Amino acid sequence: MSNFRLGIISSIYNGLPKEAQITRIEFEGPEIAVYVKNPSILNDKMDVIRNIAKQIKKRIVIKADSSIRKDQKETVEIIKSSVPQEAQISDVKFDEELGEVLIKAKKPGLVIGKRGLIQQKIFMETYWRPIIIREPPIKSRTVEGVLTHIYNETEYRAKILKVFGERIHREIIFKDRYVRITALGAFQEVGRSAVLVETPESRVLLDVGVNPSVNSGERMFPKLDIDQLRLEDLDAVVLTHAHLDHSGMIPFLFKYGYEGPVYATQPTRDIMALMQLDMLDISEKEGRPLPYSAKEVRKELLHTITLDYEEVTDIAPDIRLTFYNAGHIIGSAMAHLHIGDGTHNLVYTGDFKYARTRLLDRAVAEFPRVDTLIMETTYGAQGQTNREESEKQLIDVINKTINRGGKVLIPVLAVGRGQEIMLVINDAMKRKLIPEIPVYVTGLFDEVTAIHTAYPEWLGKEVRDSILFRDENPFTSDYFKRIEGFREDIAQGEPSIILATSGMLNGGPAVEFFKYLAPDPKNSLVFVSYQAEGTLGRKVRDGAKEIQVVGRDGRVESIKVNLEHTPIDGFSGHSDRRQLLKFLEDMVPKPRNIILNHGESSAIRAFSKVLENPRERDRLGIRSSNIYAPSILDSLRVA
Amino acid sequence: MSNFRLGIISSIYNGLPKEAQITRIEFEGPEIAVYVKNPSILNDKMDVIRNIAKQIKKRIVIKADSSIRKDQKETVEIIKSSVPQEAQISDVKFDEELGEVLIKAKKPGLVIGKRGLIQQKIFMETYWRPIIIREPPIKSRTVEGVLTHIYNETEYRAKILKVFGERIHREIIFKDRYVRITALGAFQEVGRSAVLVETPESRVLLDVGVNPSVNSGERMFPKLDIDQLRLEDLDAVVLTHAHLDHSGMIPFLFKYGYEGPVYATQPTRDIMALMQLDMLDISEKEGRPLPYSAKEVRKELLHTITLDYEEVTDIAPDIRLTFYNAGHIIGSAMAHLHIGDGTHNLVYTGDFKYARTRLLDRAVAEFPRVDTLIMETTYGAQGQTNREESEKQLIDVINKTINRGGKVLIPVLAVGRGQEIMLVINDAMKRKLIPEIPVYVTGLFDEVTAIHTAYPEWLGKEVRDSILFRDENPFTSDYFKRIEGFREDIAQGEPSIILATSGMLNGGPAVEFFKYLAPDPKNSLVFVSYQAEGTLGRKVRDGAKEIQVVGRDGRVESIKVNLEHTPIDGFSGHSDRRQLLKFLEDMVPKPRNIILNHGESSAIRAFSKVLENPRERDRLGIRSSNIYAPSILDSLRVA
Repeated sequence: MSNFRLGIISSIYNGLPKEAQITRIEFEGPEIAVYVKNPSILNDKMDVIRNIAKQIKKRIVIKADSSIRKDQKETVEIIKSSVPQEAQISDVKFDEELGEVLIKAKKPGLVIGKRGLIQQKIFMETYWRPIIIREPPIKSRTVEGVLTHIYNETEYRAKILKVFGERIHREIIFKDRYVRITALGAFQEVGRSAVLVETPESRVLLDVGVNPSVNSGERMFPKLDIDQLRLEDLDAVVLTHAHLDHSGMIPFLFKYGYEGPVYATQPTRDIMALMQLDMLDISEKEGRPLPYSAKEVRKELLHTITLDYEEVTDIAPDIRLTFYNAGHIIGSAMAHLHIGDGTHNLVYTGDFKYARTRLLDRAVAEFPRVDTLIMETTYGAQGQTNREESEKQLIDVINKTINRGGKVLIPVLAVGRGQEIMLVINDAMKRKLIPEIPVYVTGLFDEVTAIHTAYPEWLGKEVRDSILFRDENPFTSDYFKRIEGFREDIAQGEPSIILATSGMLNGGPAVEFFKYLAPDPKNSLVFVSYQAEGTLGRKVRDGAKEIQVVGRDGRVESIKVNLEHTPIDGFSGHSDRRQLLKFLEDMVPKPRNIILNHGESSAIRAFSKVLENPRERDRLGIRSSNIYAPSILDSLRVA
Repeated sequence: MSNFRLGIISSIYNGLPKEAQITRIEFEGPEIAVYVKNPSILNDKMDVIRNIAKQIKKRIVIKADSSIRKDQKETVEIIKSSVPQEAQISDVKFDEELGEVLIKAKKPGLVIGKRGLIQQKIFMETYWRPIIIREPPIKSRTVEGVLTHIYNETEYRAKILKVFGERIHREIIFKDRYVRITALGAFQEVGRSAVLVETPESRVLLDVGVNPSVNSGERMFPKLDIDQLRLEDLDAVVLTHAHLDHSGMIPFLFKYGYEGPVYATQPTRDIMALMQLDMLDISEKEGRPLPYSAKEVRKELLHTITLDYEEVTDIAPDIRLTFYNAGHIIGSAMAHLHIGDGTHNLVYTGDFKYARTRLLDRAVAEFPRVDTLIMETTYGAQGQTNREESEKQLIDVINKTINRGGKVLIPVLAVGRGQEIMLVINDAMKRKLIPEIPVYVTGLFDEVTAIHTAYPEWLGKEVRDSILFRDENPFTSDYFKRIEGFREDIAQGEPSIILATSGMLNGGPAVEFFKYLAPDPKNSLVFVSYQAEGTLGRKVRDGAKEIQVVGRDGRVESIKVNLEHTPIDGFSGHSDRRQLLKFLEDMVPKPRNIILNHGESSAIRAFSKVLENPRERDRLGIRSSNIYAPSILDSLRVA
């Protein structure tokens, strides 16, 4: 064992009262689990434990030695008698290896109890550590599937957590210090995000995505096959959000030798798995298989360690990770890396929205320390209509269409914009700004909505408060009718609003609805997200009057496009140019290096130009910041 | 065996007449050796061989099968009877493994014969392939030692040449294409030169030097311990010239696992070994040992493949190397890499002088193709006095000093400037511009001069013609008196000129002479090279009137500095700012990327600024070139 780990262990032994009877101390991933035979002695010693944790700068978890834990049946009884009925417990699962009991409930707050008292009572009476999870009001096969999978493999998971723990807490051996950033994907482009962060001691990948606008070939994947990146030496993968252009290649790492952890928020973990499995499905159907299979997605889930926002976590001997809200989609995060003991502080924004939306709070702009900022620049060259105006546009289109007896089709991406539109429509109907016609919700997007209902804590303050404290869940509102795939009766029926994936009309029920609705000028199509080159959505948006589509029977049909179509750009999950600049203006502290990524060359060029302008630099307070716009395979030494 | 090598072999079998009786075909480093039992049949088939070589783009060498070679004694007889006495053969050595006979002679031209006829006759009559080497007029223990070492290890050398050959001619397997340049040393600084060139297929290091102005610690060596560089995967080391800031860490590679070739010119190989052994010696004496020993220098010599200027050589399956004269010191080269089949062409200048000196021709500025230029920028911020003016200054100082009965001490670096000064003095004496007083030559510098006399073909046209065709060798001129180390009688004797190492008065006989000469205002000290911070030379140049030195007995002596001292900057082996710009102006074709290295940050900043100036860009014809000034550990993808 390393001296470093021995030091930690002896600090804990010396710090805790002998009567607690420590039986073992385990490095379980980034946490240090202290197994004791007499946990009650520690009941009023929480400040002692906190002090040790602070002193050794580690997260300490007190667990009960397996010999004293109550048996599972008795434990279930104690839980049921301790928790009020209204909590609606739906499942209890045990992790013998880690001494944890998973309690799933419709109202998890009632399982936790005021100031955590019920949760603590369960631990003290059963000696199982309760992990409390929400049973979502909309049943999500993803959330359920992920948990079932993890709790089926507790032995494997306990084993790898110990491996991670020992690796994270290994001795620092290199005296030399540097931090290198290498662009592997999404530099001078959008898609296939991947950044390698390298110190003499450790290597971390920030995001590992695919380029969804490319179907195959070299440009689809980030540059993972370079000398610099040895999967067996990689310490951690940090995933900022679930979109495939950030997550889509993580399972590939596990196929080719990676055995380490993936750090992500809980919503990111679940949506990531859903998206990856869906992509595998589609790729297989379309005869262009991906370089991994569902087996690697399952492995990736077991290797995922979930973190909350602003929870500081050791991920390598010289790197601490903290996630901050990025405001882009549910669970999206900016990654803050604290490297060395103050050698360097790096913020990687991932995709972020520096503005409040109905769904999410504005991204964070204040950090404890920042030397280098890696910043997305998707809209570095353009503004967006503001949100209020965009909502008005949407309401106008809906009203106009209903008044003339038409239907409104809104193609939505599975994650993010669709849920935002649901909130807009829900609010507008409640406020009688639009009539209460049926709103049909279909496609992958609906499953993602269910995942949203499992994690209300991760939503913006307003909607979160509404769900948690006022018991008003807009996603389960009666306005929304959840349907399976395409339904001809709806396409031919009364005026309605249809929210369907995919967002660019390149698949899913949205295309089926489009084929029915396109010829009738009474209908409307509303584009709320970006339409990529080559998609059906783009053709329509660009004004095509007739479109060839392959029908269900494989024959090519010709469709006349007569419906009204309206692009509304103000619902984007990305910051527009103004918001990007406002983020820099508000940022505390100011970074010494600003590295622009995740934008087409033209967007990055335009945005760089602004940041090089002396007056703008003064206004933003970045007078002495270096601006970099690297290309893929460039490396920058930042410290 | 790879299909690729099989293809080459069958081309040769099919192309050569059957009667030649090929017994084997070997990949000996970059050459393909065809062993035949009947070489005479190929005598008038040289164009056939040339055509095959052209077709397969390889260097083919015809050798005789060992079974038909004459025995060594008989071969020596045949050589002696074929070569005129005046050639003065001094040694004959055999390499049984490679079927080569080394013939050392004072007049190698006479061994070669007109249009190579004698050389060819020796081969046809003995079936040994003659390698002809000059016996220098000044005996060089280095040249002799290197050859003896190599010819003592013919078995090992033949074995590794085959390993190199197979590695060079391996199959290309990666479809992906890129070229990355990584700065490992001498970026934003001078010293510890090292550049990594990386393709999906192969990795090449350009120079691997030490920082001689740093005595120990991390900043002394280039960054060789990064993930990107695995010594066992390295294909080649290309050395542009022998100075330690370019060559000093090559033996280290062999200590830590490198088993591949080093490509260098012949003079570079010999001087490199001399410099490394000398550095080892000094480091040991000063109690700060280097991370390698003489053992690794010996291994490096066996692994060195010497190339002529403008000889195109495969060094990796996708990289061809060509050296071009760099005009900096004897044997110094610019390295041209042709990567992929036209993917990318890279010129790395190493240190270069874009002006004719007495010793060397001006560096080359025309290349077959160039996409990226990596260019030294040592004097990017300053001009130098022109050569004519500098020579005049030197002559003036000498005359003035002699007239007042003083002695002139010129501290010289071991390689380059000292020999240039010898040529200036020799010429001035011949032309009676200065009186014919003794010129004492001492220190490591004298051994380097001996090496110069072994390789007159590598000198500038004027001095080369003088030596080869007019039999006038300035280095063996009677003006020069070669002495061992310091001599008190000379220091106290009649007016004279003393050329001695080291060039910055930080060691060697120069310091001893200085101590004697410093107090007398009649004497002169001429600085012809850069005086680094912290050296005795710098202190004197900066005007110190009294200096503390450690005497031979270990006691500190105080020396009064009364002699006249004059810096003359026009003898530099580096291009000054004007010459750097002229090089770019003359360069054909113009590079798309210009990467500046080998200069202090201030020099690089100043030079970048010039290259960013639109009018200057137009004038130089580099309007569309990107200018990069990377820092150490930055990587740039250039293709």
